[in-house]
Amino acid sequence: MFDSGIGGLTVLKEVRKLLPNEHIVYLGDTARVPYGNRSAAAVTRYSLENARFLLSRGIKMLVVACNTSSAVALPVLKKRLPIPVVGVIEPPSREAVARTRKKRIGVIGTRATIASRAYERTIRRLDPSAEVISRACPLFVPIVEEGLEADAIAGLAVDKYLNDFKRLSIDVLVMGCTHYPILEPRIRELLGDAVYIVNTGKETAGEVREVLEKHGCLRTSGRGGCDYFVTDAPDKLSDLGSRVLGAPLKKVKLARLETTPAPTRA
Amino acid sequence: MFDSGIGGLTVLKEVRKLLPNEHIVYLGDTARVPYGNRSAAAVTRYSLENARFLLSRGIKMLVVACNTSSAVALPVLKKRLPIPVVGVIEPPSREAVARTRKKRIGVIGTRATIASRAYERTIRRLDPSAEVISRACPLFVPIVEEGLEADAIAGLAVDKYLNDFKRLSIDVLVMGCTHYPILEPRIRELLGDAVYIVNTGKETAGEVREVLEKHGCLRTSGRGGCDYFVTDAPDKLSDLGSRVLGAPLKKVKLARLETTPAPTRA
Repeated sequence: MFDSGIGGLTVLKEVRKLLPNEHIVYLGDTARVPYGNRSAAAVTRYSLENARFLLSRGIKMLVVACNTSSAVALPVLKKRLPIPVVGVIEPPSREAVARTRKKRIGVIGTRATIASRAYERTIRRLDPSAEVISRACPLFVPIVEEGLEADAIAGLAVDKYLNDFKRLSIDVLVMGCTHYPILEPRIRELLGDAVYIVNTGKETAGEVREVLEKHGCLRTSGRGGCDYFVTDAPDKLSDLGSRVLGAPLKKVKLARLETTPAPTRA
Repeated sequence: MFDSGIGGLTVLKEVRKLLPNEHIVYLGDTARVPYGNRSAAAVTRYSLENARFLLSRGIKMLVVACNTSSAVALPVLKKRLPIPVVGVIEPPSREAVARTRKKRIGVIGTRATIASRAYERTIRRLDPSAEVISRACPLFVPIVEEGLEADAIAGLAVDKYLNDFKRLSIDVLVMGCTHYPILEPRIRELLGDAVYIVNTGKETAGEVREVLEKHGCLRTSGRGGCDYFVTDAPDKLSDLGSRVLGAPLKKVKLARLETTPAPTRA
């Protein structure tokens, strides 16, 4: 499983809960976080480098626990990797379509995710009658990374980006960025209980189980575990990671990726 | 001249104003921005890669227009490069020491810059009796990059990080990050006119002229110009750059750096 930084830990948490016997290798690309404002070419290149590192650790399946990467690099990853690849766009999209009554679904994410229109395309493919209203919330990631989710600044940012959704009367919101669950209480405060907020981590965990079952490689016994790698500043992941997971995160190791100046084909 | 992103354009602007006959090659490392929360090892590695690219363009002197990089990588750059290197820490520090009456100087910057204590060391070396009060303002860069300097969020962030300075009665403030001048009106609103705000770009431009004069390679005639390079998303620099420079910024090119997995020596 990889993410651009710590956000993917919200997915890891749900996968561990659902699949406690599996061993997870987590890679946070903290040397190049955030992906959300970068070009599709750069995100694809970084995603391939991350995948190569994880392959070298002997993984049997890849979870792209980063929305930006799932939105722009998933087809390339699926094509080039010899193992099953699951992203974080399809699972919450399916849940959103199943939950909406008004057929009005809100989607929030980084600039790159929203610009990719990946959620819009996925949701409309699943239900052509659904209307998708998308908003980029570029300040949410730094607010979460700085631990300011309880600060007045977080409230102001939530209001700035999401106030419109009230008027537009959506009934389902997809948090299209793995950092955003940290802000869920503030978002719920603004939108109220009438809006169903999709939990991407939980939906993705369900998909991971399905895929492992289908490929006959689901572990149902034995003790699972986690290896944590980052590409820069292991101490920072320990601190923030503990906050996300609600438990101390120990032994974070530094990963040395083989970087390439440009994708050979993309 | 290089910066992690667009912030260095505030320095470029002042250098162009003071030295209109010089030709500047600007490199924004937008593929890896921001440097402010990364480790010293990563920032040093990225700085060397940037410098190598600029050397290949035939520069006669290097301006490290990034505070984080100046704070942690300047000694390595000075040691390894065959040309004069100027950073953005020393020039404003000298001005701060010259301006303060109360001998109480405030310094703001990214986490990495503040953690490096580079300003503190430089100012105390210039005037051992000066007291330096430092604050990391990690949300300022994303606020500026998102163009939210006039938003209520900017006011709240300025108040959050700088309100303490009023009580601590500093009389000089060093904006130790090249992005921060964009927030100067909001900072001035809070701190009032009694606090002198040092203009890093202007002070650095003065130093650049001195160094070029000393080395006998100052251009005093002929038309100057600028080449703009970024490591990702050239369009984004065009937009934000125009806002910083107050004039359209055209022909931004993509730079392909030779990256290395880790520094050979550092």
